Amino acid sequence: MSKLTDVPKRILIGRALRSDRLGETLLPKRIALPVFASDPLSSVAYAPGEVLLVLSIAGVSAYHFSPWIAVAVVVLMFTVVASYRQNVHAYPSGGGDYEVATTNLGPKAGLTVASALLVDYVLTVAVSISSGIENLGSAVPFVVEHKVLCAVAVIVLLTLMNLRGVKESGKLFAIPTYVFVAGVFIMIAWGAFRGIVLDDTMKAPTADYEIKPEHQGLAGFALVFLLLRAFSSGCAALTGVEAISNGVPAFRKPKSKNAATTLALMGGLAVTMFCGIIALAMVTKVRMAENPAKDLFHDGVSVGSDYVQNPVISQVAEAVFGHGSLLFMILAAATALVLFLAANTAYNGFPLLGSILAQDRYLPRQLHTRGDRLAFSNGIVLLAGAAALLVFIYGADSTRLIQLYIVGVFVSFTLSQIGMVRHWNRHLAAEKDQNKRRRMIRSRAINTFGAFFTGLVLVVVLVTKFTHGAWVALLGMCIFYVTMTAIRRHYDRVAEEIAAPDTPTDDSVRPSRVHSIVLVSKIHRPTLRALSYAKLMRSHTLEALSINVDPAETKALKDEWERRGITVPLKVLDSPYREITRPIIEYVKNLRRESPRDVVSVIIPEYVVGHWYEHLLHNQSALRLKGRLLFTPGVMVTSVPYQLDSSEAAKRRARRRQEWNAPGAVRRGPVEKPRRTKEKEKDREKEPSRKL
Amino acid sequence: MSKLTDVPKRILIGRALRSDRLGETLLPKRIALPVFASDPLSSVAYAPGEVLLVLSIAGVSAYHFSPWIAVAVVVLMFTVVASYRQNVHAYPSGGGDYEVATTNLGPKAGLTVASALLVDYVLTVAVSISSGIENLGSAVPFVVEHKVLCAVAVIVLLTLMNLRGVKESGKLFAIPTYVFVAGVFIMIAWGAFRGIVLDDTMKAPTADYEIKPEHQGLAGFALVFLLLRAFSSGCAALTGVEAISNGVPAFRKPKSKNAATTLALMGGLAVTMFCGIIALAMVTKVRMAENPAKDLFHDGVSVGSDYVQNPVISQVAEAVFGHGSLLFMILAAATALVLFLAANTAYNGFPLLGSILAQDRYLPRQLHTRGDRLAFSNGIVLLAGAAALLVFIYGADSTRLIQLYIVGVFVSFTLSQIGMVRHWNRHLAAEKDQNKRRRMIRSRAINTFGAFFTGLVLVVVLVTKFTHGAWVALLGMCIFYVTMTAIRRHYDRVAEEIAAPDTPTDDSVRPSRVHSIVLVSKIHRPTLRALSYAKLMRSHTLEALSINVDPAETKALKDEWERRGITVPLKVLDSPYREITRPIIEYVKNLRRESPRDVVSVIIPEYVVGHWYEHLLHNQSALRLKGRLLFTPGVMVTSVPYQLDSSEAAKRRARRRQEWNAPGAVRRGPVEKPRRTKEKEKDREKEPSRKL
Repeated sequence: MSKLTDVPKRILIGRALRSDRLGETLLPKRIALPVFASDPLSSVAYAPGEVLLVLSIAGVSAYHFSPWIAVAVVVLMFTVVASYRQNVHAYPSGGGDYEVATTNLGPKAGLTVASALLVDYVLTVAVSISSGIENLGSAVPFVVEHKVLCAVAVIVLLTLMNLRGVKESGKLFAIPTYVFVAGVFIMIAWGAFRGIVLDDTMKAPTADYEIKPEHQGLAGFALVFLLLRAFSSGCAALTGVEAISNGVPAFRKPKSKNAATTLALMGGLAVTMFCGIIALAMVTKVRMAENPAKDLFHDGVSVGSDYVQNPVISQVAEAVFGHGSLLFMILAAATALVLFLAANTAYNGFPLLGSILAQDRYLPRQLHTRGDRLAFSNGIVLLAGAAALLVFIYGADSTRLIQLYIVGVFVSFTLSQIGMVRHWNRHLAAEKDQNKRRRMIRSRAINTFGAFFTGLVLVVVLVTKFTHGAWVALLGMCIFYVTMTAIRRHYDRVAEEIAAPDTPTDDSVRPSRVHSIVLVSKIHRPTLRALSYAKLMRSHTLEALSINVDPAETKALKDEWERRGITVPLKVLDSPYREITRPIIEYVKNLRRESPRDVVSVIIPEYVVGHWYEHLLHNQSALRLKGRLLFTPGVMVTSVPYQLDSSEAAKRRARRRQEWNAPGAVRRGPVEKPRRTKEKEKDREKEPSRKL
Repeated sequence: MSKLTDVPKRILIGRALRSDRLGETLLPKRIALPVFASDPLSSVAYAPGEVLLVLSIAGVSAYHFSPWIAVAVVVLMFTVVASYRQNVHAYPSGGGDYEVATTNLGPKAGLTVASALLVDYVLTVAVSISSGIENLGSAVPFVVEHKVLCAVAVIVLLTLMNLRGVKESGKLFAIPTYVFVAGVFIMIAWGAFRGIVLDDTMKAPTADYEIKPEHQGLAGFALVFLLLRAFSSGCAALTGVEAISNGVPAFRKPKSKNAATTLALMGGLAVTMFCGIIALAMVTKVRMAENPAKDLFHDGVSVGSDYVQNPVISQVAEAVFGHGSLLFMILAAATALVLFLAANTAYNGFPLLGSILAQDRYLPRQLHTRGDRLAFSNGIVLLAGAAALLVFIYGADSTRLIQLYIVGVFVSFTLSQIGMVRHWNRHLAAEKDQNKRRRMIRSRAINTFGAFFTGLVLVVVLVTKFTHGAWVALLGMCIFYVTMTAIRRHYDRVAEEIAAPDTPTDDSVRPSRVHSIVLVSKIHRPTLRALSYAKLMRSHTLEALSINVDPAETKALKDEWERRGITVPLKVLDSPYREITRPIIEYVKNLRRESPRDVVSVIIPEYVVGHWYEHLLHNQSALRLKGRLLFTPGVMVTSVPYQLDSSEAAKRRARRRQEWNAPGAVRRGPVEKPRRTKEKEKDREKEPSRKL
């Protein structure tokens, strides 16, 4: 079993690093770049195509606007990178946009950012995997013929890997990312060389196709709207830029500076690749239409509904390297792999953000515990389910999914930048040092421009994409927001209810005596152990309690009790209906009624078995009884476990589970090693326990 | 919600009796008859038809063998009834065939009978409901057009009713059963009157049809085999005869005598109806074929695959009363209703037998608890699932399902009768009284003949039906047998492992001191309560333990601890990975390693909430920690519950659940009323608790 799943894991992910080695590794920039930038870098695989798609609505002639749109995207990218370089310096803790918004704009803004990011993680998975499948499909036709199936299969694979626990290693990200980046740069360079020096004519496979414009001769407002829409689609290249600001603690020192440099590097790479691909697409005459089946013609004939529109990057690669050439194949594979890695980053980010939200009580507390398999599992399954649903609904069509994307990103960009402006305002009010003030004012200027620009883009995205699908993303955000608010309200209400009173004398929590009851069905080792433990506890009264469901058995019990000379008195309750829970509950309630200030301690011997099916055969009555007793006030319920031989199996399983590697370990940075057990023991000796 | 489901329940089942009234009611014979006999009486709705079906294989001419087959069934019925009258006298405890076989032939025979009966209950549901649907369909065509759907719907309805808890009332069984019996007798009488006195020609709707025999002119061995197969099918009339022997405790005194009389009554009624219907079918010239689509012709034309073959009883009723007449409609409705009631008896019998098997540790112990909703629910769902599966696979075709039936019944008949012979042999060896000896010898003779005859029928059924479907039933029996043997073996192994040692000095169960640890996350009411309870327990050492997942929170905790002057020492464990479970487990293990003879008592404050979604928000860490602690030897785990306001909702729910009525209450007979709480309290005063 383990072997079987290990093989594809090794292939996809490389050999896992050992947990203790990883914990101490800080990331150098050359590794940090691929770890954090696979999402923004990989988006050049689909963003340029989306720009052309939208422009095609106005016909091929509109394609000449694409360089201008590329320029706008570049300016935006530089703005965002410059802004986040300020974030990285101001908030080196890795809290990210959620922290910035919460600290500076209050919890509601923070929660809005969190909702936006959660939705965005889902879309990152859906979009990246769909696009990856499309890129893979340009080399392997089977994949694109079974798009939804393959996309869902990749989601399932990623989910299983993350559920099982995959250690992110720097190399794992580095190799495909650098192969991808190098491939794109070689393509751009070779394309430029062929075009300019050799003066070759490079032709994309769709170069001879004609596009029937949906709206001929658009002008004025309509044209502006279309250009804005194309620009919003191009903004997909910016998703994931904020990842570095969440990962500052993982960088080598000086952390903030290195993170800022990496951000700049990433921006530079992304922008160059984006522009290069657009330029090559222009040169090789790539033709893409929003509805190829309807609007794309070849030799005057509609391409029909069977036509598969390959991504721009693969069309360009085909034109530059030649169809089926080795470099074309390598680039297609690297593109798909980087896109899957980008999806995988969401598998790390989603539960991590969940953990931070849990700390602020917007999500169930237990998600807070780091390295807790169950908590991560829930997040992973939720993420995968939502992404798979989207992929299914939208037919794994990255073009349609991108309509939903970006809204969330820009909500968090904008709020984060506004928060940064407030941050600098606050610090400026306190800061006297002129040098520092000057730097702060400069930072504030950058963040102000960032807030203005990203806010503007947010409005553009909302206006141009709302009916195209952005409303779905907004709906998702609302659902997250409302749920998290409700959870927080619940926790607040409970906290108020259980708040410790200031006056230490409170009758309801100050009992006077303990009446202990050991539940007995037969005399065997678990019972004897429970009895001897109970005796050790020196409660005020102690009795054994048995339910008479079978007179013969009860008689035998009483006889053996006497024969063994057990000093604890045995009390037998009749239960003509062979019930167990009800007579005990009634008995306990009666005890409490007689002396309401006393506490009843019910001690239950329990078997511990190793397999779930064995569990079905034991403890069911005990389990139900415990459940009922918890609702009875003034009761404490004690389990005295007796480990059967078969429990060893479960212990081994638990140990394996403990060694599970939570995803996202690399990007969170290392943590202090737990202090040695030796030291702990010393501590304990220093703090003497109360002797009774 | 309750209102909605009550309406059909009232309609189908009548007003439920109050629980306490029912508990004291013993059944008079006139009520016991319908309660226990709905299964055998209702089988006359399909058994005669099955006989004709099989005979039709050799052509209409073979129909003249049907009176002879009826005679054979009558003889068999008298034999079985006479035999079970002996059982009823010898085993008035209601243990039934399982008890008889286990006591006299050993546990393996008993388990075989149990497996056979469990399979039979499933088939009772499948066959009775399918046949009920076919009978209803003769009056309401829609039903027969959507046979599987309607049959599954009835199964679901019965299941929901039984899961919710339906009180069986005598009336509920009495009215439809007596309407049915009266209807059949009126039909037979009116038919005889019309035929003999008025000399009317009554013609069944299929009287003019011709049957193309599959095997023309069968003779010799082939004919005998066919007749034996027809006889096996007719034996379906005997299913459920043993029900009365399981229900002796429910009868009025003298219980055994009344039960024996009821048995005789039931046998007489069933036989008369069976023969009457066969006779009327002969007179009205009912024509049935095993494959009507292929073998049935009307005016020389095949009836085709759309043809619906109505049951014999409805064809006869149509001939006697006229198509669409009121009496015809009433009889069809009553027939369907009685068949559904017959199915319902399996819903009672299945979990009841399960409870007896659980007592003997062949099934999970908790099924033993009477009136335990969960235990019954599991049985009911299992039964319904298996029956629905069969109905689906066999297209709700009672003819095909009957091929599987009967094997189980005759396995248990035969083993039970052999057991009775052994029973008498044993008693004869000890008995001196000549009068009693003579009666015993007579009983033994009856049982010997019964064993011989039912054994012979079992062989006939096996031989004639094995390939037609009986193998499925045998496979089902094997699965039950193997599973139950495995469960018993598991329990035996565990019992051996935990058996109390005879020497009272056993170090592993004799600890010396208790080290108590109260887990603390914050100071609030639940924590304070847990601390004050823990102090009351006077363990040898007591400390509070907190996990440092957030230094600021831990600092605040320490400060408040001091401010409040809590005397219990607070120990803080570091957990850089924000884990909770692991540091605690390690700490506990360390304590144990230092002083292996000590016991560690971990006290966990727990919130009690009312809704499942609230539960998701609390206690998850505590729950997992408890799970892990149970695997750590030498630990006792104590929950100190704190009931939040919302827990009231859960308490109300639990109370409702407690008032649930387990199905099958009537047929099990009344139980002793639980003694008054007052008396219990007196008891407790008499047995003073050990003062410590």
